[in-house]
Amino acid sequence: MPLLKLLFLGTGGAVPRADRRMPGIYLEDWEGHRVLLDAGEGVQYALMANGISPASLSYVAITHGHEDHVLGLPGLLSTAKMAGKSLKVLAPPRLASALSRGGVEAATSASDRHMSIRCVEVCHTVEACGWLFEWDVGFKLDLSKVEGFPKQALTKLIRGEAVEVGGRVVRPEDVAEPGHRRWRRLFYTGDTGPCPKALEAVGWTDVLIHEATFADDVEPAKAHEEGHSTVLDAIEAAKALGARLLILTHISARYDDLGRHRALAASYRHAVVPEDGDWVLVRF
Amino acid sequence: MPLLKLLFLGTGGAVPRADRRMPGIYLEDWEGHRVLLDAGEGVQYALMANGISPASLSYVAITHGHEDHVLGLPGLLSTAKMAGKSLKVLAPPRLASALSRGGVEAATSASDRHMSIRCVEVCHTVEACGWLFEWDVGFKLDLSKVEGFPKQALTKLIRGEAVEVGGRVVRPEDVAEPGHRRWRRLFYTGDTGPCPKALEAVGWTDVLIHEATFADDVEPAKAHEEGHSTVLDAIEAAKALGARLLILTHISARYDDLGRHRALAASYRHAVVPEDGDWVLVRF
Repeated sequence: MPLLKLLFLGTGGAVPRADRRMPGIYLEDWEGHRVLLDAGEGVQYALMANGISPASLSYVAITHGHEDHVLGLPGLLSTAKMAGKSLKVLAPPRLASALSRGGVEAATSASDRHMSIRCVEVCHTVEACGWLFEWDVGFKLDLSKVEGFPKQALTKLIRGEAVEVGGRVVRPEDVAEPGHRRWRRLFYTGDTGPCPKALEAVGWTDVLIHEATFADDVEPAKAHEEGHSTVLDAIEAAKALGARLLILTHISARYDDLGRHRALAASYRHAVVPEDGDWVLVRF
Repeated sequence: MPLLKLLFLGTGGAVPRADRRMPGIYLEDWEGHRVLLDAGEGVQYALMANGISPASLSYVAITHGHEDHVLGLPGLLSTAKMAGKSLKVLAPPRLASALSRGGVEAATSASDRHMSIRCVEVCHTVEACGWLFEWDVGFKLDLSKVEGFPKQALTKLIRGEAVEVGGRVVRPEDVAEPGHRRWRRLFYTGDTGPCPKALEAVGWTDVLIHEATFADDVEPAKAHEEGHSTVLDAIEAAKALGARLLILTHISARYDDLGRHRALAASYRHAVVPEDGDWVLVRF
């Protein structure tokens, strides 16, 4: 069963706290892709402190150009360069263009072995991407339906290709386990207020990492005006996307602990509010 | 007796290690001045981890524009701004001009209560300042020579002013303790190769913080070509300046520990090679 590893390197917002760093989430999938979501200041040290080489990253996906999300990028680029590696950066269109002009390998989407990452525009105060990950986990076959099939045909069916066996065309759907789903998704919002257009574009997701800058002590209208969400906004988004797991992050420095966020998040069927340094493992 | 506190936040060079961050030294004097020397990535977190508010800094003195010395600066400026403070930056002339154009309060020297900081050009691959600190600690009077003097006269004498007592002009030198020195100095080189012109400009210092990127396993000529020094170069500089205390920093990531640096430094009368997080207290 595919296992997705998420490491929360920085769960804070723009105002730094010793115990809550600027945004940075490390994602490692079962195919060996290593993606950093946002790059707050010092993120390369946070990676190293967790035994992850900054030069081993496949991609760094930046949600938007605000300082708390990008100050760690120059250091990552510099370190990768010294290690003789080229770091691929994903960013919103204008930021990606600016980075490209500066000689950085930048794009607005990526497609790799069984995984794609694309920008879904969210609702912040500047051009901003939420990042939608989609994995093709292939088809899980009902073995009773493929008895005697050649091995090559099985491989193709698992990959989603139709095959001809004994003069009959067999589609993966015909021989898959009932209820099996070929795709897995994760959506990371970055900074956003409530954003119907983004929810519509995403449609559904297994895992939703949603910002929840504020708990319930701040007027929602004020949070939205600043391009941010409350815990209840995040829960609404999770419901709309049918998320099996909701992860809240980007917690304002005003909160000394995560108690109120966690109490509010408990109303969702499965929600977590990690601290800096927490791993969240997802069995897809 | 004046006490100078130095906290080594980052003792490494351009290539980061989990245990040796990019350059950053926190200096706090007995007058309450708080100065950060160089600003490697993540330095504001290192300050916070040591209980020092980044917004409480009086000055940030940058030696030169290389990434490992400046990547922490935007975060410091941003944090200070959010705290409603203005951070004064000291930098080499061209960098200071560029920062000023960007709206940053930048200069090439500073003069404050009993303390001055000025740029002494060093020998690196780009425009670079070593920072020379000078403190006026006033005169320490020989009490037997000022018996019966009015209190106001004593204050002036300590401050270095001549006074008239009983129709006689008394200069501080006349009534000071023998061998007393009015000035205290610290010189921080930043990145430099051996640099006779800088030594000449500095003349003398009590404390010398000298870079020692390399121990003795690298050809000195190669180190110098890269604008860096070996431990022996640093010792030569300390001898030339008559430094009472030599502190070595900016250790290359090639060294897993400080053993060789420390063994070589031991030939100087008083030298230390701090690790990240070490305090060095200097009784002036």
